[in-house]
Amino acid sequence: MHAPVVRDGGVADRVAVEEPLEIRVGGEALAVTMRTPGHDEELAVGFLHGEGLLAGPVRSAGPTPDLVANVVDVDAELARRPTARRFYTSSSCGVCGRGALDEVAVHADPLPAGPVVERALLAALPDRLQQPGFAVTGGLHATGLFDASGTLLCVREDVGRHNAMDKVVGRALLDGGLPLHRRVLCVSGRLSFELVQKAAVAGCPVLVGVGAPSSLAVELAADRGMTLCGFARRGRVNVYTGAERVA
Amino acid sequence: MHAPVVRDGGVADRVAVEEPLEIRVGGEALAVTMRTPGHDEELAVGFLHGEGLLAGPVRSAGPTPDLVANVVDVDAELARRPTARRFYTSSSCGVCGRGALDEVAVHADPLPAGPVVERALLAALPDRLQQPGFAVTGGLHATGLFDASGTLLCVREDVGRHNAMDKVVGRALLDGGLPLHRRVLCVSGRLSFELVQKAAVAGCPVLVGVGAPSSLAVELAADRGMTLCGFARRGRVNVYTGAERVA
Repeated sequence: MHAPVVRDGGVADRVAVEEPLEIRVGGEALAVTMRTPGHDEELAVGFLHGEGLLAGPVRSAGPTPDLVANVVDVDAELARRPTARRFYTSSSCGVCGRGALDEVAVHADPLPAGPVVERALLAALPDRLQQPGFAVTGGLHATGLFDASGTLLCVREDVGRHNAMDKVVGRALLDGGLPLHRRVLCVSGRLSFELVQKAAVAGCPVLVGVGAPSSLAVELAADRGMTLCGFARRGRVNVYTGAERVA
Repeated sequence: MHAPVVRDGGVADRVAVEEPLEIRVGGEALAVTMRTPGHDEELAVGFLHGEGLLAGPVRSAGPTPDLVANVVDVDAELARRPTARRFYTSSSCGVCGRGALDEVAVHADPLPAGPVVERALLAALPDRLQQPGFAVTGGLHATGLFDASGTLLCVREDVGRHNAMDKVVGRALLDGGLPLHRRVLCVSGRLSFELVQKAAVAGCPVLVGVGAPSSLAVELAADRGMTLCGFARRGRVNVYTGAERVA
């Protein structure tokens, strides 16, 4: 998760590891993402799920048989063959869209009415994120999966904020835990369109971020009926949409 | 740059605008990126330049004649036809790579020996970034272009950190100011591989960030002979590579 560097002519330090990962399905390369190594099979299946590319269960996911570094092969049926046009707009990238909200949005089933969570608990979630990698490097994003009482169920760190969420969702998928109807997701940074979309596709009704939301993040959350909270810090939190789930 | 929202049942607030932009070359769609509207022609040409896609001068760049919203058409000769495989790995995305450092790196001419900049000046650059959008929304990244004496020449804000740099580089390209041999770039956030690559392709020998660098960012900066500085805040800065340009 972190690697040694020498800076300023002799100071030993550590930085967050960033390396490319090639995601294959049935042996064929589908996407390449820059990520922090570890939990790669979670990243691969979480990414595929979030992009609406899976047509059935994941039969297996892991390193390729020849143990090629930085490659994960997923055995699953694809919902569609991504075209070139879709490719560049449906990478694991947080700054890529598909031309307009209606067009960019991946299909997501409706979100459930509940859970209802105390406002103070939502504000406190970032403090409950365990971020050992960030503590060492200052260069990793985190996503945490919580139950409605604020118990941390899973946390992943990555140089890419979207990868961190893909890994958490991928873990849930591999554990048979999707959709995340009774769960709350919390991210360590800002709330982009892409993160709201990933949470919606995973069926999670409540998304909390330490940072600011974008206009399209708020718009998509409103459209999906998601509870979107930002600036969760120092005991406070802003609720942008879905206030009915905040007690 | 920012849009009104109502949060918490009646509080008027503003959030950073995030909308998709389709980048066309000669009328043909090449890429879609989520960005903050404004300076779109800079973003388009900066992106194309940073990806090594331009084979000649930009003859024009601007909204399409039919004034379709969120589309910029660039009139320029392409260096190559991006294949489907290249597409998903060469988007304007900061978390996409091309499989390995050698493979992912876009060609960049060698960087010049100079300039040499005072350490205290490098540490102070973030304070000189003007970020009116961030001040209002807390949700925008910034890139600033400075001369070697620390004078701010250009600053752009965007929800995507890579877009902010693309806009600054694109502005320089449109003004005939590339390569940035006597310049210093400063970014408001973390230093990813992609940002180092964009600075290298633009010919900028010094890159400063408020946040942490990744391992691949340090590796690429060392390989390119770039001066890479991180954690520039509160009068201090870490120098990871290229210390010969720091006085």
